[in-house]
Amino acid sequence: MGGELSYVLSKLPMLSTSDYASVVSMNIFVALLCACIVIGHLLEENRWVNESITALLIGLCTGVVILLMSRGKSSHLLVFSEDLFFIYLLPPIIFNAGFQVKKKQFFVNFMTITLFGAVGTLISCSVITFGVMQIFKRMDIGKALEIGDYLAIGAIFAATDSVCTLQVLNQDETPLLYSLVFGEGVVNDATSVVLFNAIQSFDLKQIDHRIGLHFIGNFLYLFVASTLLGVLAGLLSAYIIKKLYIGRHSTDREVALMMLMAYLSYILAELWYLSGILTVFFCGIVMSHYTWHNVTESSRITTKHAFATLSFVLETFIFLYVGMDALDIEKWRFVSDRPKTSVAVSSVLLGLVLAGRAAFVFPLSFLSNLTKKSPSERISFREQVIIWWAGLMRGAVSMALAYNQFTMSGHTELRTNAIMITSTISVVLVSTMVFGLMTKPLIRFLLPVTHPPTSINIIGNIDSCHNSPKSITVPFLGGSQDSENDLDVNEIHRPNSIRALLTTPTHTVHRLWRKFDNTFMRPVFGGRGFVPVAPSSPTDQSGVQQWQ
Amino acid sequence: MGGELSYVLSKLPMLSTSDYASVVSMNIFVALLCACIVIGHLLEENRWVNESITALLIGLCTGVVILLMSRGKSSHLLVFSEDLFFIYLLPPIIFNAGFQVKKKQFFVNFMTITLFGAVGTLISCSVITFGVMQIFKRMDIGKALEIGDYLAIGAIFAATDSVCTLQVLNQDETPLLYSLVFGEGVVNDATSVVLFNAIQSFDLKQIDHRIGLHFIGNFLYLFVASTLLGVLAGLLSAYIIKKLYIGRHSTDREVALMMLMAYLSYILAELWYLSGILTVFFCGIVMSHYTWHNVTESSRITTKHAFATLSFVLETFIFLYVGMDALDIEKWRFVSDRPKTSVAVSSVLLGLVLAGRAAFVFPLSFLSNLTKKSPSERISFREQVIIWWAGLMRGAVSMALAYNQFTMSGHTELRTNAIMITSTISVVLVSTMVFGLMTKPLIRFLLPVTHPPTSINIIGNIDSCHNSPKSITVPFLGGSQDSENDLDVNEIHRPNSIRALLTTPTHTVHRLWRKFDNTFMRPVFGGRGFVPVAPSSPTDQSGVQQWQ
Repeated sequence: MGGELSYVLSKLPMLSTSDYASVVSMNIFVALLCACIVIGHLLEENRWVNESITALLIGLCTGVVILLMSRGKSSHLLVFSEDLFFIYLLPPIIFNAGFQVKKKQFFVNFMTITLFGAVGTLISCSVITFGVMQIFKRMDIGKALEIGDYLAIGAIFAATDSVCTLQVLNQDETPLLYSLVFGEGVVNDATSVVLFNAIQSFDLKQIDHRIGLHFIGNFLYLFVASTLLGVLAGLLSAYIIKKLYIGRHSTDREVALMMLMAYLSYILAELWYLSGILTVFFCGIVMSHYTWHNVTESSRITTKHAFATLSFVLETFIFLYVGMDALDIEKWRFVSDRPKTSVAVSSVLLGLVLAGRAAFVFPLSFLSNLTKKSPSERISFREQVIIWWAGLMRGAVSMALAYNQFTMSGHTELRTNAIMITSTISVVLVSTMVFGLMTKPLIRFLLPVTHPPTSINIIGNIDSCHNSPKSITVPFLGGSQDSENDLDVNEIHRPNSIRALLTTPTHTVHRLWRKFDNTFMRPVFGGRGFVPVAPSSPTDQSGVQQWQ
Repeated sequence: MGGELSYVLSKLPMLSTSDYASVVSMNIFVALLCACIVIGHLLEENRWVNESITALLIGLCTGVVILLMSRGKSSHLLVFSEDLFFIYLLPPIIFNAGFQVKKKQFFVNFMTITLFGAVGTLISCSVITFGVMQIFKRMDIGKALEIGDYLAIGAIFAATDSVCTLQVLNQDETPLLYSLVFGEGVVNDATSVVLFNAIQSFDLKQIDHRIGLHFIGNFLYLFVASTLLGVLAGLLSAYIIKKLYIGRHSTDREVALMMLMAYLSYILAELWYLSGILTVFFCGIVMSHYTWHNVTESSRITTKHAFATLSFVLETFIFLYVGMDALDIEKWRFVSDRPKTSVAVSSVLLGLVLAGRAAFVFPLSFLSNLTKKSPSERISFREQVIIWWAGLMRGAVSMALAYNQFTMSGHTELRTNAIMITSTISVVLVSTMVFGLMTKPLIRFLLPVTHPPTSINIIGNIDSCHNSPKSITVPFLGGSQDSENDLDVNEIHRPNSIRALLTTPTHTVHRLWRKFDNTFMRPVFGGRGFVPVAPSSPTDQSGVQQWQ
C-alpha cells in the first residue's frame, strides 16, 4: 500500500527542508549560540572577557573555518540584514533595558542624559565629519567620497552602541555611569532621526538661524511624541490587564499581551517615523512601573526572566553575527592589494572616534556639574574618563548604518566603498575588543573604593529577584518610604547657592510626580501595592477557573 | 549645525522603515493578535467558542475589511509561507506540547497512539485517495488531476492537525482522549515523512511484498531515529545544566540553553531528513522530566510559562493567518464563475474526511480494546466517537501542504489548482469552525459524569503550578509513591486471560523503566529529587555571584 502512494508525495515533507543550505546555516548558528552560552558561563569569573567578546571571537573563528572550508569563497552564513536587525533584534533588547533599568538613576540624571545624547552626539558627529574631510582629502581615497559620505561617516561613528554598553557597564556596580552612557545611547537614536527629518524638510542652501530653531523644534516634537507613545502603550497594557484581570483565567495571556503591546509600540513608532528605540524604552519603563505589578506572581517571574533571556540571546546573536560577518571576503578582496590604506583609514577613524567623544564628554560633564549642589552628585573626573571610554564602542548599529550607506543590499563593487566597509568592521572589532576588554579593569582601577561589589549586590539581587525587576531595588517612583526619606535628607539643605537652586527643581518634580502618581495614576493603572492580591498565590487562582 | 549634516543622512533612519508596507502589515497583525487575546479572555466562559475560532473569525473579518479597502484587489497582508510555518511557528508549539504533556497517559497509551498515527493515517489516506479518484472522475475537474494529485489530496486530508487538537481537547478534563488524538497527530508526521522516503527510494512499477517490508523498516528507522535524537538533545541539556550548574551565575542562561537546544534538535532532525515534529516532541518530554528539575526555581516558572505563552501566541497567529488568507481573491476569482463545482468539491472532501477517519478510529479502537484487561482501560464507544470527531479538524498543516502541491510559491494560474486551494480553505474553515464549535458541547453531552471538571482541576492546577509542568500532576516517570500504588493495584489482578497477558508488558516495562531511571539516569541527568536544592531559594544565589 505504501508503494501505491506515488512519487508525487515527494514534495510534501520536503517543504520543511525546502532550502537545505539555510537549514544548515541555522543549525550552525543555533549550535554556536549554545556554545557561546556555555563558554560564557565558564568564563564568567574571568575578569577581562565578557559575553560579547566571547561571541565575537567565536564568530570570527567560525568565519575563518567557513572561509577555509569554502576555499576562500565565503565566510558568513547569512547576509547582514538591516531589517532583521532593526525590526527583530533591537526592539526586545531596548525594551528589556527599559524594563530592568533603575528608574531613579535614570530620571535623576535625565537632563544630563539628554544633554549627552542630543548635544554630545552633534558635537561628536561634527568633529568626526570635519576630521575625516581634512584627513581623507590628503589620502588617495578622498576623491571618491562626496560631502554626503563624510556626513554619513560622522553619523555612523558618532552614535554610541546601546547594546555594547549593556554588556560592559554593570547597572548594579556603577548605576550612575550605566544610566548616563546607556541613556545617552537611547537618546542618540532620537537625535539621528531628528537630524534626518530636519535635513529633509529644509532647504540646505540657505543656512540661517531659523534652521537651528526648526531643528530644536523637531527634536522636541520627536522626543516628546516618541516618549508619549511608549508611555501610552505601557499605560494601556496596565489598564487592560488591571481592568480585565486577565490572570484570573490565564497567566499566558498576560505575558503574551505585555510582549505584544511592547512590540506594537515599537512598530507603531516606526510607522509614524518616530524613534522606535525611545518609544520601546519608555514603554518598558512604564510597564515595569505599572503593568508588572498588575499581573500574577508567576507572570512577574516569567516576564522578568523571559525578557532578560530574549535580550541576552539576541545580544549574543548580534555579536556572533558581527564576528562572522567581519571576514566577508567580498569586501576584503578590494582592500587586499593595498592593505596600508585600509589600516590608515581605520586608524584615522578610531582616532576621531576617541577625539569626538572626548570633545563632548568632558565639556558637557563640566556643564552638568555646574548644576549639581553636593560634590557627591557631580561627575568626578575619573567617572568622566569611564564615560568617555565606555561609550567608545561601536557595534552592530554602526555596521548596519555603514552597510546602508556604502553598499547596495550588502554588496559593493566600488573600491572606496569596500574600504569604508572594511574600515567600519575594523573599528567595530577593535573598539569592541580592546575597549570592551579594558572597561572592566579600568573601572576597577579608577573606582576601587566607591563601589564594593559584593555586599551591595547580595542585597540588591535577593531583593530584586523576589519583589520586582531590578529597577525597584532602589525605588524612585514606587513611592516607598525609603526613597521618601532619601529626598527629605536632600531637602534639609535649603538652596544656598546657584547650583542648589538649579538642583531643587529635580527633586520638586520628583515629589510632585509621586503625589500625582499616588493620587491619580496608580488607582487607575495599578502598580505596587495598588492591586489587591488574594491571600493564596494568584498563580493558583489563575488555573482554577479555566474549566468553567 | 543641524543643517550642515546634509541630505545624505537621509538614508540612515529610513532603514528601520525600509519597507513601509510590511511595517503597516506588521502593525495590523500585532494589533489583531492583541485583540484576539483580549477577546479570547472575554469569551473564556463561553462554552462554545474557543480561542482558535475567535482568531479565525477575526482573521476573516480583517480579510473582508482589507478586501473592501483595497477594492477587491487583495485580502491578506502576508503571503502564506511554508517555511515560516514549518521552521518558526510549528516547532515551539509541538515542543511545548511535549513539555506539558501528561507523560503517564502518553506512555500507557503508546501502542494505541502509534497504531492510530501509523496504520490509521494510512487507512484514512487510502480511503480519501480512492474516494476522490472515484468521485472526481465523474466531475469535470477530474481531467486535470493526475494520480499524483489524488495521492497528495489523500495525504493532505489524512493528517490530523495537532495544533487544532491542542485547542479543542483539554488535557486535564479528558486526558485519555487528549493523549490519543494529539499523540496520533505527532506520529502522523513520521508517517508522512516515511511515506515520502519509501516512495522516493523504491521503483513503483514493481509493487511486491518487499516494498511493504521496506516501508515498515523505514518507518521504524525514522521513528526510532527521530525519537532518539529528541531524547539525546533533552538529555544533553539536562547533563550540561546539571554539571555546570549554570543557574549559579545566571537564570537567563539556563532558559536560553533549554530553548536553543530544543530548537537545535528540531532543525537537526530537519537537516537529517527525520521527523522534526517527533524529535522536538520527545525533546520536550525529556526536558520536562530531567532538565526542568535541574534549573533554578525561577527558571522553572519562566520556562513553564514562557513556552506556554510562545505556543499560545503562535497558535493564535496561525489561526488569524489562516482566517485572513482564506479570502485570497486570486484563487477565488477562478472559482467564481462556477461556484457549484467548488461547493461540490469541498463537500466531497469533507465527507471523505469524515469517512476516512471513521474507517480507522472504530476498527483500531476495537483492536486496541482487545489488549486491555479491565473495562475501565478500554476506549468506550462514546470516547471513540469523540476521538473520531476531535481529530476531524484540518488546519494550517493542510493549508501548507495544499499550497505546496497546488501552487508555485503561493500563486497559481490553473483553474483546477485554484479550485483545490479554495476547497482546502473551505474544508479547513468549515472543519475548524463546525467541528471546533461542537467538540466542547459534544464532550459534555457524551461524557457528562465521568469527569467532573471543577473538583479534579482545582487540585490538579494548584499542584502543577507549584511543583511542575502539568505533566507531573499524575506522575508516571517521576517515581512518586502515588503512581507506584496505582500500579500495584493493577498488578494484584494476576493475568487470567489473553487480554491481561497482553496488558502486563506495559506495566512491567514501566516498572523496569522506573528502576532504571532511578538507578542510572537520574543520578547522571538530574530530575525531581536528584538535584540538591539549597535551603534558600536558588533564585537568590543565582544573582549573588554575578559580580565576582
